[in-house]
Amino acid sequence: MKFASYSTGGNNYYGAVVEDGMIALSPEFPEWPTLREVIAAGGFDRLEDAAKGAEVSHKTGTFTFEIPLPSPEKIICVGVNFPDRNAEYKDNSEAPKNMSLFIRFPRSFVGHKQDLVRPTVSDKLDYEGEVAIIIGREGRHIEESQALDHIAGLTLCNEGTLRDWVRHAKFNVTQGKNFEHSGALGPWIVPFTDAAQIEDIRLTTRVNGEVRQDDRTSRMLFPVRRQIAYISTFTTLVPGDIIVTGTPTGAGARFDPPLYLKPGDRIDIEAEGIGTLSNGVRDEA
Amino acid sequence: MKFASYSTGGNNYYGAVVEDGMIALSPEFPEWPTLREVIAAGGFDRLEDAAKGAEVSHKTGTFTFEIPLPSPEKIICVGVNFPDRNAEYKDNSEAPKNMSLFIRFPRSFVGHKQDLVRPTVSDKLDYEGEVAIIIGREGRHIEESQALDHIAGLTLCNEGTLRDWVRHAKFNVTQGKNFEHSGALGPWIVPFTDAAQIEDIRLTTRVNGEVRQDDRTSRMLFPVRRQIAYISTFTTLVPGDIIVTGTPTGAGARFDPPLYLKPGDRIDIEAEGIGTLSNGVRDEA
Repeated sequence: MKFASYSTGGNNYYGAVVEDGMIALSPEFPEWPTLREVIAAGGFDRLEDAAKGAEVSHKTGTFTFEIPLPSPEKIICVGVNFPDRNAEYKDNSEAPKNMSLFIRFPRSFVGHKQDLVRPTVSDKLDYEGEVAIIIGREGRHIEESQALDHIAGLTLCNEGTLRDWVRHAKFNVTQGKNFEHSGALGPWIVPFTDAAQIEDIRLTTRVNGEVRQDDRTSRMLFPVRRQIAYISTFTTLVPGDIIVTGTPTGAGARFDPPLYLKPGDRIDIEAEGIGTLSNGVRDEA
Repeated sequence: MKFASYSTGGNNYYGAVVEDGMIALSPEFPEWPTLREVIAAGGFDRLEDAAKGAEVSHKTGTFTFEIPLPSPEKIICVGVNFPDRNAEYKDNSEAPKNMSLFIRFPRSFVGHKQDLVRPTVSDKLDYEGEVAIIIGREGRHIEESQALDHIAGLTLCNEGTLRDWVRHAKFNVTQGKNFEHSGALGPWIVPFTDAAQIEDIRLTTRVNGEVRQDDRTSRMLFPVRRQIAYISTFTTLVPGDIIVTGTPTGAGARFDPPLYLKPGDRIDIEAEGIGTLSNGVRDEA
């Protein structure tokens, strides 16, 4: 079963995703206002029980997908995490010893099927398809051997980036990674129960149907176990925290000439066992 | 009047700071669970009225200062923002055109009079004294001329940093700026009503009584008005957001040999009209 956050009629819900729409579950669990509290309580099983045999509450076309968790404590992104990505930087540096990390705010994302926003100040909006993990169990100084036990679920990320604002200043990518609604998270959360769901799955990004990124999570320079262990060296991971695990080679900036996104484009990010995150593009109003 | 967040007996409060303790105000305003909601509602005047003539609720020594807002949506820090700071990098680069920005999570801070934590993995904990502004009014694409109207209050930050983890990876300072409880925010919030409160105030950092940083906010390379305008180019600033405005020259890493913090040290960060943020140092348990 898959769980999503969505809105309709000015109200926010979470529910179970079924073929023709959503089974609203948030009205049944007032003690858990969002999926973050569900995850903190280890509540997927109770949601699943409640959804069994229930009627569709909101049919496809009558609701809007929102990002899976409206306000996680942290969204931490891993940079340069696939082979050839470091080489793409063409600075003759060796593969890095430690993973580069940066932070995105929830408002830099939209939900599934919403349009990414290309801002007025830049026409260099680019896609990055990634698998995102959602932490379910609190931990600090987590051992790699225990790391997967801390994952509650999986989702996908279009880690949309304004390329000319990534190095707008001397240090840090903060600006180019945090334009309002420049990326997407979703479509939903798949509960995590088995290492095979993450260790070697295929991840592809298509733009207007053309494959641009195509790789497997087994090729990450810093696998998910190592990400959880490393990040928990400096901070406590808590339920609802999201780690965006890195993108394969093939972003638009790496083509000559670069292939940036423009209004009307459609980006599909697909991963085996998780689903497909689809978004259009519009210009900032 | 000054307002602080604090805890005692396992409960969290906010209140007015008076000479011999705190006047608890959160019990009077259940519609505002934290100072973030107070700020979003423009509620400092009502707090002030409620505190007038009230008795002290919690005497000094019976409560713990917490960070002023427990969960702001964003804490954005400005890097390399005073003259001589860029020169400190000794990389012969010119003064940057745009400000470097990075993000800290609330759990990287402790409140006033709590100890900073030196982690097991590094002995290079360093101080950085800074003025922090707290946003009171939502805005995107804010003009510099209007920027100060978006500030609700002022506080101080010890932007504590693990120097060897700032460049632990190829890009970004995320790790070295986000060690759990490695910095401090506080001691309280001073409501902002007049540009003179921020435009040219003296900011000093003392370690065990010795002055290490001493400068004036008028010397910032990117003044607060510009910070608000620039940041709002890419994201919507919302009530409770905190901007940590940059530190003067004189951090411990710049001495030869470097003067890193060690257990038992005491750091006092003082700014005219705001107060003094004082913290000790302890080793991670």
